[in-house]
Amino acid sequence: MKVAIVGVTGVVGETILRVLDERNVAVRELGAFASRDRTEALRWRERDWPIRAATPAALAEGGFDAVFFASSDDASAELAHHAANAGAVVIDNSSTFRLAAGVPLVVPEVNPHHAGPDDLIFPVANCTAIVLCVGIAPIARSAGLRSVRVATYQAVSGAGKAGLEALASEERSEFTLEQPGAASPFAAAIFRNVIPLVGSDLDDAGDSGEEKKVAAETRKMLDLPDLHVAATTVRVPVRYAHSEAVFLETERDTSVAELARVLDAAPGIAFHRAGIVTPRDVEGQDLVHVARLRAEGESKRHFQLWLVGDQVRKGAATNAVQILELLIARGRFTAPQTVGA
Amino acid sequence: MKVAIVGVTGVVGETILRVLDERNVAVRELGAFASRDRTEALRWRERDWPIRAATPAALAEGGFDAVFFASSDDASAELAHHAANAGAVVIDNSSTFRLAAGVPLVVPEVNPHHAGPDDLIFPVANCTAIVLCVGIAPIARSAGLRSVRVATYQAVSGAGKAGLEALASEERSEFTLEQPGAASPFAAAIFRNVIPLVGSDLDDAGDSGEEKKVAAETRKMLDLPDLHVAATTVRVPVRYAHSEAVFLETERDTSVAELARVLDAAPGIAFHRAGIVTPRDVEGQDLVHVARLRAEGESKRHFQLWLVGDQVRKGAATNAVQILELLIARGRFTAPQTVGA
Repeated sequence: MKVAIVGVTGVVGETILRVLDERNVAVRELGAFASRDRTEALRWRERDWPIRAATPAALAEGGFDAVFFASSDDASAELAHHAANAGAVVIDNSSTFRLAAGVPLVVPEVNPHHAGPDDLIFPVANCTAIVLCVGIAPIARSAGLRSVRVATYQAVSGAGKAGLEALASEERSEFTLEQPGAASPFAAAIFRNVIPLVGSDLDDAGDSGEEKKVAAETRKMLDLPDLHVAATTVRVPVRYAHSEAVFLETERDTSVAELARVLDAAPGIAFHRAGIVTPRDVEGQDLVHVARLRAEGESKRHFQLWLVGDQVRKGAATNAVQILELLIARGRFTAPQTVGA
Repeated sequence: MKVAIVGVTGVVGETILRVLDERNVAVRELGAFASRDRTEALRWRERDWPIRAATPAALAEGGFDAVFFASSDDASAELAHHAANAGAVVIDNSSTFRLAAGVPLVVPEVNPHHAGPDDLIFPVANCTAIVLCVGIAPIARSAGLRSVRVATYQAVSGAGKAGLEALASEERSEFTLEQPGAASPFAAAIFRNVIPLVGSDLDDAGDSGEEKKVAAETRKMLDLPDLHVAATTVRVPVRYAHSEAVFLETERDTSVAELARVLDAAPGIAFHRAGIVTPRDVEGQDLVHVARLRAEGESKRHFQLWLVGDQVRKGAATNAVQILELLIARGRFTAPQTVGA
């Protein structure tokens, strides 16, 4: 298989390469794309791959089976159709196509049936929404879901290398004479702070871009268009892994014991019956960790839980590779059999 | 007035001294108490005050008008009655007496009427609960309150100097060869992490000590014994000021515009109609900041908001001093007038 990555030098692009290796995905040839040509090549699977500027021609004429987009919304909007029109499957980590009608928003543990045989564009959902949906989908299937409220604790790597560097720079400036860099992607200092704004500015209703994504994408992934979702998304000085404090209401009466059995058996989840789990515990992992499941008082329909997942991996790169694996397993990339041959 | 502070060398004790100064409270004499006699004296208001071990005799025989307790639950349980039996007003920052029947839990902006003329013991509520109640009491008064869900972002100074030192030590170890100290009060590393456990261990229902305090104390302060309260309390690598993401349900229909007017006019609150506020913005302040007020979708009864307050000040020291000021204003410490004299 011939696969391309647009944004191969970014946090998600680099992690896609690592996950392809770890999961031993049968990629023979790599198209390595960045915003511009690079003089240094990319070393991967014992070969040097030139890093070239992502252009419509390079993507259309590359003969790729699949193209991962791990760059900006703008890059995906401009380039994805060139790859798809040339027959490549596009697996896109930007928000560009996520809410488009007829486009599936696939998390393989949650809604693999959304992926149709003719779909060419597979957006990867927002990382916060993916962690949330992996954690609550088993509950939605088992007891129904009426409302979800979530407050997040989001790692700086959600803003890419610029986010990691902003935190690192502010940390260093505390212990050296170095001044913090001016290019932070955050609306305030992040070292020794938390910032209740993730993504674009607040709209007239008061919601941030991230909060709107979490609500709309969660409804789409769970096939619950009327689900009540309220989110407060907050950046915290953590490097990797998003955490989420979730309050949810089920459609029917259930219990902690029943939900614990459901979560224990669910794919993609590490369920902790007791104790806690923190983002530093799960760095580099693909599982979504669920802990602190409990009822709100004596309620049989209101529950709380705590989710932690490495959003660069399960929230982005791993989910993208899992989509590719799902399509491979369905024979999407095998040569068509000639009937009767 | 003659005032004592038990725990005068701790974070809250030191802040009580600072707040007494800033607010120019008429304290003539100070009893400075710690867990043991200290050789160095305490410099305050241009005098040296000896620091002595807090003992029953020292508190009973000191002739104090008021005694602040800013030490441990054990110290308050052992010593507070000795001060009160000698006629002193006890203002206690521990959790020892907060939920006792007949004992008021006073936040002057919220429920000053709970302070009765014969009360001797005035617990200061949990810092997270104080920030929450200052922020939502105006809404409870205006539109009623049916449920409150809160996810917290709690500063390390909530665990006193040991908490501040744990974060500082872990930070330093990243930039020097120093190993982090072994004596962290937290259940996991706090640098570059968040920890979903504050206070004592989880009980059989899965709630932490902090979460139970927030629920029970909020109900008591707001005079709403049946209020549905669900909390997830989380420690974050912030030095001062707790933040809280709040989801609440009112009893009657209301609107963001109406609630904004109510919050704008409420005592003790800095209300931000637009934009955000972070814990680093409010360090050292006595106001509770309210931002990001918005409806959950089109709801007229479900709203979200973001609270930030310096929990060492308004959540502890300032609230304690405000209780003293309330009692001074009511003439509690003036000599009784002889009738007919």
